[in-house]
Amino acid sequence: MEKLTDLTVTQFTDVLASNAPAPGGGSVAALFGACGAALGVMTANLTIGKKKYADLWENAEAMKTLGTPLIGAFLQAVDEDTLAFNRLMDAMHLPKDTDEQKSIRREAMENATKDAASMPFHTLTLCEKTVSVLEQLTGKINPNCASDFGVGAASVQAAARGAWLNVNINLQSVSDEAFVKELFDRAKALYDDVSARAEALFARVDESCRPACNQTEG
Amino acid sequence: MEKLTDLTVTQFTDVLASNAPAPGGGSVAALFGACGAALGVMTANLTIGKKKYADLWENAEAMKTLGTPLIGAFLQAVDEDTLAFNRLMDAMHLPKDTDEQKSIRREAMENATKDAASMPFHTLTLCEKTVSVLEQLTGKINPNCASDFGVGAASVQAAARGAWLNVNINLQSVSDEAFVKELFDRAKALYDDVSARAEALFARVDESCRPACNQTEG
Repeated sequence: MEKLTDLTVTQFTDVLASNAPAPGGGSVAALFGACGAALGVMTANLTIGKKKYADLWENAEAMKTLGTPLIGAFLQAVDEDTLAFNRLMDAMHLPKDTDEQKSIRREAMENATKDAASMPFHTLTLCEKTVSVLEQLTGKINPNCASDFGVGAASVQAAARGAWLNVNINLQSVSDEAFVKELFDRAKALYDDVSARAEALFARVDESCRPACNQTEG
Repeated sequence: MEKLTDLTVTQFTDVLASNAPAPGGGSVAALFGACGAALGVMTANLTIGKKKYADLWENAEAMKTLGTPLIGAFLQAVDEDTLAFNRLMDAMHLPKDTDEQKSIRREAMENATKDAASMPFHTLTLCEKTVSVLEQLTGKINPNCASDFGVGAASVQAAARGAWLNVNINLQSVSDEAFVKELFDRAKALYDDVSARAEALFARVDESCRPACNQTEG
C-alpha cells in the first residue's frame, strides 16, 4: 500500500472521506500532532537568526532539536495507525469453520485489537512530548508567530482528543480485562494531563492575539 | 507557487516547520476543517449501503451531499490563506521613499491586512456549516464509526480555534476601527457558537467510546 504520508493533501482528504474504513480518526489524530510539532518548530525557526531575539536563540535551537523528530514520529504514526487497523481486518477475515480455526481467529483478533489500541496510545505519548516543547517555547518566540504557536497548541489538543477516542474504541473490543484497565488508566492520565496543558497554552495565546479594543473582553 | 494542497502530507509538514512565515496557522486551521468535513462524509459513506442501517441512508446521503463540497472549500482556504499572507508581504515591501509612496504603501497594507483577516473568517463560516452537518449525523450513523465521528468534531473545534486566532492577529494590524469592531464581533459570535456545538458533539462521543468498565467514570 502507498504510504498515506506520500499522498497529496487533497488525496489524503479524498481517501479519508471515502467508504474505506481506513484511514480514519486515528491517522487524522497523528496528522494533527505532526502539524502541532511543525508549528512549534516553525516558531523556533522564525526566532533563530533574528537579531532582535538573540537572547532567545539558544532555547529556540534546543526546542527545534526536540521538536523536529516529533514531526517524523507523528507522520509514522499516521501510517502505522492505519496498518494496525488493516491487520485487525485481516484477522477478522480468518476462516472460522472449525473450532480450532475459531480459536486461532479469536486470538489473532484479540492481539490485533490490543495493537490497534496501543497505536493511538503511542500518539498520546508524542502529544505529551510536543506540549512540553510548546511550553518551553512559551514567551520565548518571535511575537509575530503568536497565532501560529496558538494553532500549534490547538493542534496538539485535537491530536490528543483523537488519539484518546481511538484508544477507547479499540479497548471496547479487547477481552483481556487487566489489559483494558491498565491501558485505559494510563491513557486517561496522559490525556487529562495533555488536555489541560494544551488548553492553558491556547487560552494564553487567545487572550494575547485579540485586537487592542477587545483584549479585556471574555 | 505550487499549491499547498498538491504537496504530499510529509512535504506540507516540512514547509510548515521551515523558517518561511507561510504557510502557518491559518492554512493549518483550514486543513483541520477539511479533515473534519471528510470524517463526517466518511461516516455517511460507511452507513450508506449497509442493509442494517437502511433507515439511515436517506439522511446520510443528504449529509454526504452537504459535506462533500465543504471539503473542497476548506482545501481552497488552505491555499488562499497563504496567498493572502503573501499579498500582505508584497504590500509591506512596496517602496517608502516619498510621502506619496508611503501613502500608497499604507493603503495597500491596510487592504491586504483586511483580506488576511477575512480569509480565516471565511474558514469560520465553513466550520459552522460542517458542525451543522455533524449535528445532523449524530446518532444516525453506523456505530462502528463513532470514534471517526468524534475526531471529526475535534477537527472542526481545532479548525475554529485556529481560524479565530488568525482573524484576531490580523485585526491587530488593521487601522479602520469600524472594520475591526464589526469583524471581531461577527467572528466572536461565530466562534463561540461553533466551539460550544463542536464541544458538545465531542463530549457525547467521548462518553460513548469508553470501554464498558469505565463508562461511568468522569
